[in-house]
Amino acid sequence: MSGFEFSCPLPIRDYPRVLLAHGGGGRLMHELISRLFRAAFDNPVLAAAHDGAAFDAPAARLAFTTDSYVVRPLFFPGGDIGSRAVYGTVNDLAMCGARALHLSAGFILEEGLEMQALWRLAQSMAAAARRAGVRIVTGDTKVVERGKADGLYVNTAGIGAIEHRLEILPASVRPGDALLVSGDLGRHGIAVLAARAELALESAVESDCAPLGEAVQALLAQGIEIHCLRDLTRGGLAAAVVEVAEASRTGARLSESALAVCEPVRSACELLGFDPLHLACEGRFAAWVAPRDAGRALQVLSAHAPEGGAAIIGEVTAPSRPRVVIRGPFATERVLDMPSGEQLPRIC
Amino acid sequence: MSGFEFSCPLPIRDYPRVLLAHGGGGRLMHELISRLFRAAFDNPVLAAAHDGAAFDAPAARLAFTTDSYVVRPLFFPGGDIGSRAVYGTVNDLAMCGARALHLSAGFILEEGLEMQALWRLAQSMAAAARRAGVRIVTGDTKVVERGKADGLYVNTAGIGAIEHRLEILPASVRPGDALLVSGDLGRHGIAVLAARAELALESAVESDCAPLGEAVQALLAQGIEIHCLRDLTRGGLAAAVVEVAEASRTGARLSESALAVCEPVRSACELLGFDPLHLACEGRFAAWVAPRDAGRALQVLSAHAPEGGAAIIGEVTAPSRPRVVIRGPFATERVLDMPSGEQLPRIC
Repeated sequence: MSGFEFSCPLPIRDYPRVLLAHGGGGRLMHELISRLFRAAFDNPVLAAAHDGAAFDAPAARLAFTTDSYVVRPLFFPGGDIGSRAVYGTVNDLAMCGARALHLSAGFILEEGLEMQALWRLAQSMAAAARRAGVRIVTGDTKVVERGKADGLYVNTAGIGAIEHRLEILPASVRPGDALLVSGDLGRHGIAVLAARAELALESAVESDCAPLGEAVQALLAQGIEIHCLRDLTRGGLAAAVVEVAEASRTGARLSESALAVCEPVRSACELLGFDPLHLACEGRFAAWVAPRDAGRALQVLSAHAPEGGAAIIGEVTAPSRPRVVIRGPFATERVLDMPSGEQLPRIC
Repeated sequence: MSGFEFSCPLPIRDYPRVLLAHGGGGRLMHELISRLFRAAFDNPVLAAAHDGAAFDAPAARLAFTTDSYVVRPLFFPGGDIGSRAVYGTVNDLAMCGARALHLSAGFILEEGLEMQALWRLAQSMAAAARRAGVRIVTGDTKVVERGKADGLYVNTAGIGAIEHRLEILPASVRPGDALLVSGDLGRHGIAVLAARAELALESAVESDCAPLGEAVQALLAQGIEIHCLRDLTRGGLAAAVVEVAEASRTGARLSESALAVCEPVRSACELLGFDPLHLACEGRFAAWVAPRDAGRALQVLSAHAPEGGAAIIGEVTAPSRPRVVIRGPFATERVLDMPSGEQLPRIC
């Protein structure tokens, strides 16, 4: 959090809050971009002050992804919309098996947002980018009227380098593949819910918001035959497994006893009637790997799971109806499906 | 507009409007993405249904840019937020001297948006992408509650190939450079204002919203020594010229008589007190070129200006105070600066 020591380089006394004119293309927007965003994201590509960033292609094959972030509240235990916006897109690149390189940042600011909060979020994005080894090289700022954007929405798009010959995507998944998760489930969902509802949970839960690139690069470095990767955001593990099963035209059998859910998340779920299988994580992913590599993959994931919970949780089967089943504690089986409604809006 | 003939492939009878659950990561979001967006943007990269797109690097040097679009109203004469979101980012790539290749699309939808309107906008984006020669290869969908987001906000990020050895950016601008514009000024600003205020102007003005890549590629093909390019969006010609002068530490002298403003825009400006120099265009750009190439550059721009108005409008000078001056009709001179306030919010 060392980056937070510095005070906002824009004169807060003159402009304590974002004005519509900060998005108007004139002097105020120019100052906001050059004195706040360029100061926070400081790097030579961004400093060129042009309509876009130019850079040398770092590999023969590239990955490209985007996500918009509308999480409420802007700050929550373990993270904020700024760090979330960096890690989320970095993680989507990691899920393509790519090494994240460059991010763009598109801000939609609400008129009236406190300039100091914007500065904190920009600093948080810069710190997250340093941790994930990426640079924010191009951006855009719009301002909408009061009431239209909950403070701010952020979009990040990302470019990464694919430096291996695997085809990491749902179509590569085969019956017999081992299915692993990289850690315990549900922290982000419960942390955001608690922050939003000002729930006084018995034990505080922090979001698991974190970059996943190192764990994926370690799997690749170990020569693990990865078939597919998916981070467990909206819809949680259930949505990820069902979606990949549908896209790869396979089935899956999971074992509930293999899944780790920490005690505060478990008790919050019991209290509130949530299923941890459907809760969003922001620092966990599922990996589909060749069966012979399952043990080694688990070793790698365990070494990169500071909060534990990495596990082999099931296997891919031939297509079946129902597509995905999960075996419960007393050998009961239930069908796993995507949630059909809205469990918890605005989680990311 | 042939793409608009087809009806929305989502069952509108079941879901006539966007629900919060369409952003929840579950079944409804999956259907929205696969049946509406993938159908509209149809291409093999997007069809891989993964967290990001993978593609082969098309050149040794790449350009990367992003813009969010919050224009009100969603539909206006000559365009809509969808075509605007494609051309705007394609044009930022063109301003880097890059050939646009791939776009991402990040949607923030308002709960209650009519599904038919979303389908029209997706079709409009697809048509604009075809016209500009790009593919929408990756995307994201979020939904926010009623009253936020004015129907929808869109972010597009873009990747382009830089296939020449010029350094097209403000730092390359030199005293003596010729300054050109590619067409007449102010159409987009007046078109959006008229649509928003339901002004009954004497003559209808359509937005100039269009892709600029062909004109830029033609300048490059003719071997014009381009030093900088800037599209004339928010803040208009004035903001573009002042910003580039500041970033390149030069001055500029313009001639007002060289600028084309069509009659309906001119009379709307007189009526409403707007300065066409500050009005947004969405299909016009300024070019800073080596003085010896000015005449040939004008020929190329004229050949790509269906509504006329391409012109040599001034020259770059040594740094001076004031930085940018414009000579009026009676040899009077006035100072040109970025607008300090907000002329017309939410123009793009």
